[in-house]
Amino acid sequence: MSTLYSEDLKELVNDALHVYFPKSSQRLKTINDAMSYSLFSSGKRFRPVLVLLAAEAVGADPKVALPVACAIEFIHTYSLIHDDLPTIDDDTLRRGSATCHVKFGENIAIMAGDALFAEAFVLILTEQAKLTDTQRLVRTLREVAVATGIDGMVGGQVVDIMSAGHDVDQSTLEYIHNHKTGSLIVASARCGAILGGADEAQLEAITSYAGHLGLTFQIIDDILDIVGTDSTLGKNVGSDINNQKITFPGRLGVNRSKEIAESTAKLAEEALGGAEMYRDRLNDMSNFVLGRKS
Amino acid sequence: MSTLYSEDLKELVNDALHVYFPKSSQRLKTINDAMSYSLFSSGKRFRPVLVLLAAEAVGADPKVALPVACAIEFIHTYSLIHDDLPTIDDDTLRRGSATCHVKFGENIAIMAGDALFAEAFVLILTEQAKLTDTQRLVRTLREVAVATGIDGMVGGQVVDIMSAGHDVDQSTLEYIHNHKTGSLIVASARCGAILGGADEAQLEAITSYAGHLGLTFQIIDDILDIVGTDSTLGKNVGSDINNQKITFPGRLGVNRSKEIAESTAKLAEEALGGAEMYRDRLNDMSNFVLGRKS
Repeated sequence: MSTLYSEDLKELVNDALHVYFPKSSQRLKTINDAMSYSLFSSGKRFRPVLVLLAAEAVGADPKVALPVACAIEFIHTYSLIHDDLPTIDDDTLRRGSATCHVKFGENIAIMAGDALFAEAFVLILTEQAKLTDTQRLVRTLREVAVATGIDGMVGGQVVDIMSAGHDVDQSTLEYIHNHKTGSLIVASARCGAILGGADEAQLEAITSYAGHLGLTFQIIDDILDIVGTDSTLGKNVGSDINNQKITFPGRLGVNRSKEIAESTAKLAEEALGGAEMYRDRLNDMSNFVLGRKS
Repeated sequence: MSTLYSEDLKELVNDALHVYFPKSSQRLKTINDAMSYSLFSSGKRFRPVLVLLAAEAVGADPKVALPVACAIEFIHTYSLIHDDLPTIDDDTLRRGSATCHVKFGENIAIMAGDALFAEAFVLILTEQAKLTDTQRLVRTLREVAVATGIDGMVGGQVVDIMSAGHDVDQSTLEYIHNHKTGSLIVASARCGAILGGADEAQLEAITSYAGHLGLTFQIIDDILDIVGTDSTLGKNVGSDINNQKITFPGRLGVNRSKEIAESTAKLAEEALGGAEMYRDRLNDMSNFVLGRKS
């Protein structure tokens, strides 16, 4: 499936992450090591690539959105570090290596997450600010901040935590997915589109696409947690079951969940038809998400 | 000493915090309760009042900086919640009540801190954006982001954690204080001054003032941790000694530390002489910090 993925943009992101990673003094070596350990592991760079693809889709050079793309990867990494903590999901394996708290201790892991979150805003406010007028910069920052707050990622994560072990309804399950993972994925696509100069129709189509893409991504993630292996996924499988997490396959079974993922991927594709844009690589992305094995 | 404190501005902040606190759905009741529990405890509102005083000092209505003032209190509260965690300072008492993790559990406390941090940016990007042009808004956001990142608050906290139990030098002690507490205090004053329309001389004078004020604040804080009581301070005294933290009184004794605080408070006052401004209430603030008993 890897041929469907935009490897050129992934490479662009990986190079830029090294450039944009904060340089700190020797005093800060430990926290720096913890941040870079988690950030420079073998991630798919799904969210930053999506930022760049959305900019490209509306006719811009993807590089116009590169700092925000990297900032969103900082934020994604911060959320993984905090979610993996013993008191939350208690995961020990992530991206093929020991999780941040296993390697550096819980205190440093909490701080590494906090630092990556702050540095995401610093990155946008320094590097993206060089490329973008202040009106558009502020609009982008607001997308990122709202997506990570209580009505976004953190809200989804908390409802997920609170729902574990309870028999929740389908609307709660969708709330969790749409917020815990969905919010940042939608914000990624919207930021890329905004920075690429999208008109309202394009922004609306890309927002709808990303909503469906995010749900597809999470359903497949949940399926892989059941049918995958630690070594292919690079993280602990069975984590959802161990944590009594509410998931699509847990509620509806693997086969029915796969069908739902196929239909949400189709909805993503259809959403892109709502406006004039270059849509080939965004469609490749949803096919990649649907077919991914890790 | 309370007559020296700007009670009118503290009241303004407390009212505004209620207005600006994010309204969330019933699903998010637990995280909302955890956030409001920590935010609406009996804090001094030192940082937000400083924001408003700095705006006033350069001739503006303090209200021009009210959303940023409240956002900085969100951030201060987030930092207290994370610092109090069992794996970091392991404090059980804060602002006269059980700490957030004692009341709500560690997982919710971590998320409440994360949410407050994100919502601080949301608040600036929604409410402050209504009052301020985008150039100045971006400048303010950058101050806040840098002050909370690896070269600011988090960096100071990590060096503090790493130094515990070690015999560190005076420059490390000053690094910890200038970053862990100092960065956000300096950013508070700078944001207020910027939003109040300070000229370069005023901004420089206020920055210098706030640097000395922050150090005074932290030295007095460390002294109170030795000579105060749980009930007056509303937090666990002796926490620094228990955690083998490096402090001024720990290194130099209470009396010598008190002398240093007096001289840094004097430097704060002198710094304000560097530009034309209304300085009475900023001087009151540094007298309050020097004389505070809680």
